[in-house]
Amino acid sequence: MREVRGWAAPASGAALVPWDFERREPGDRDIAVRIRYCGVCASDLAAVRRGDPAAFPLVPGHEIVGEVAAVGAAVSRFSVGDQVAVGNIVDSCRVCAACRAGRENWCHDGVTLTYGGTDRVGGARTQGGFSAEYVVDEHFAYPVPSGLDPAGVAPLMCAGITTYVPLRRWGAGPGRTVGVVGMGGLGHIALKLAHAMGAEVVQFTTSPAKAAEARRMGADDVVHSRDERRMAEQAGRFDLILDTVGAPHALEPYLGALAIDGTLCMVGIPEQEVRVNPLSLIVGAKSLAGAGSGGTGETREMLDFCAEHGITAETEVLPADEVESALDRLARNDVRYRFVLDMGH
Amino acid sequence: MREVRGWAAPASGAALVPWDFERREPGDRDIAVRIRYCGVCASDLAAVRRGDPAAFPLVPGHEIVGEVAAVGAAVSRFSVGDQVAVGNIVDSCRVCAACRAGRENWCHDGVTLTYGGTDRVGGARTQGGFSAEYVVDEHFAYPVPSGLDPAGVAPLMCAGITTYVPLRRWGAGPGRTVGVVGMGGLGHIALKLAHAMGAEVVQFTTSPAKAAEARRMGADDVVHSRDERRMAEQAGRFDLILDTVGAPHALEPYLGALAIDGTLCMVGIPEQEVRVNPLSLIVGAKSLAGAGSGGTGETREMLDFCAEHGITAETEVLPADEVESALDRLARNDVRYRFVLDMGH
Repeated sequence: MREVRGWAAPASGAALVPWDFERREPGDRDIAVRIRYCGVCASDLAAVRRGDPAAFPLVPGHEIVGEVAAVGAAVSRFSVGDQVAVGNIVDSCRVCAACRAGRENWCHDGVTLTYGGTDRVGGARTQGGFSAEYVVDEHFAYPVPSGLDPAGVAPLMCAGITTYVPLRRWGAGPGRTVGVVGMGGLGHIALKLAHAMGAEVVQFTTSPAKAAEARRMGADDVVHSRDERRMAEQAGRFDLILDTVGAPHALEPYLGALAIDGTLCMVGIPEQEVRVNPLSLIVGAKSLAGAGSGGTGETREMLDFCAEHGITAETEVLPADEVESALDRLARNDVRYRFVLDMGH
Repeated sequence: MREVRGWAAPASGAALVPWDFERREPGDRDIAVRIRYCGVCASDLAAVRRGDPAAFPLVPGHEIVGEVAAVGAAVSRFSVGDQVAVGNIVDSCRVCAACRAGRENWCHDGVTLTYGGTDRVGGARTQGGFSAEYVVDEHFAYPVPSGLDPAGVAPLMCAGITTYVPLRRWGAGPGRTVGVVGMGGLGHIALKLAHAMGAEVVQFTTSPAKAAEARRMGADDVVHSRDERRMAEQAGRFDLILDTVGAPHALEPYLGALAIDGTLCMVGIPEQEVRVNPLSLIVGAKSLAGAGSGGTGETREMLDFCAEHGITAETEVLPADEVESALDRLARNDVRYRFVLDMGH
């Protein structure tokens, strides 16, 4: 076993503290990744602050960028020293239809999550990227595109792929109008991606102060979502709206903003049941959909797209020992637009 | 004006009685249709039993088949004596993007409904097909395919088109698995259509006694929706489920039955708010959608498809003076599978 130092919550709601734990030695197809950066996602906050008590101690983090420190005998894609990224999925069954299609995030047998999962090799609980090193099958590791800021690449591995997949699925591109609800970690990347795909993009936000930055990132229009007049003007405008907001909020105004055949796609994992008037879907043949993460095929495609268009997350990089400050500020939405921990390598 | 005899509810909740009213004289592009058959839709029942008091007297009926009795000077598609069908839309703005695309049911200016609407010519309230004659612009009339039972064609004009459009949109066909929830007026036609499109079709029903008839109409499998074991077995099976049930019921079992990227489409106009756990959509990237009616382009296509495959509704034809019996039995779900009134012509 390999001794690794990480930042763990000893119990649900407890502050993260340094913690030494063990990872498996790299097997034939594994690489060991010396972690350089790890993004701080809203789901990390939920896991450490409100997670299942049985899951602790818990090392969060699933937006990982680092350097290959060791490779197993059968590794073919990476060499020691390569820059590499790992996201929120580190294993799957590999044989079901979803896995064979490169859409491992919907593995019929259940994916192995980067932390809080059960390692398919050895059966230990997986621990995340707020740590010095990760050991992962090369199948779930991706080359970091050269020319992109590695700290800004880390959030692409969750926030990026989670928004890239639905933008592609519902055809974001020239002649299409896309709305993005919320301008946090997911929202600001969705905005950049949709703009780069050639869509007309409208950023919805409760923070009018973000309007200038939204335009700089590619928004053709910015709508203050508490301005009822402006919201009413959006009726029938959008082919696709990505809703990145996890906090409870009404969906009806956004369903009303959809064009015929339009889709409102939730990617923010609202914590409460959503309620919809069926006529809000039936009139105009609209859809309420969901999406989350992506498979290895989609992740490679997303990284290629970001490399081609020079897209990374807007980050605030903090040293790992400020992780509690990052989590507290994230809980207050005091982040522009993604915290990334510098793990000190 | 033309004097027409119909069957009207004098007030909300009142029994239908014979009533003489006026329709406009056919204009240049209008035809007068001597009505032979009119289907009885669940929305007729809702309109007369629970409709807005301001809408009465009300003549329901929007699944019309008859014979052309008169044509305006500029009518080009029909001649006196032609068999003709009219559905639930009789006019629209004709100039918006939806109208120009032949999708008049989503007219940006609002469609004129066959009854309970405001006639764009003259401004009178429209009255429906439980009557001797209808006057309509030829644009919203369709030739009845020869070789099909005209009484069985009438329900295609609402139940048929409302299910045909989403089946086409979500690709019902070979290699796809389609579920149909509810085996009433809409459901039994959806079953026949999906089968004729080449999909594997599963009928969900609360009436196990309908299983043999479902198989006769094309079902590859029939699932009793109150059988929890059978319902659990459906997990991940369906690319598309059409939910034709208007009565309150849980959507979660059907969302669970969808495959990755699958769509649950409501066409039954549930009367209550629907509630969904967001994770039921996010996990598997599923959609909850709506659909209703169709435009002139889609309606022509649907009738061609039904003619090619010999599809009509299963009907119980009653004389018009038994309309109250039809409505009462429909309210008790005592119908296999669509009542059609014989207007006596």
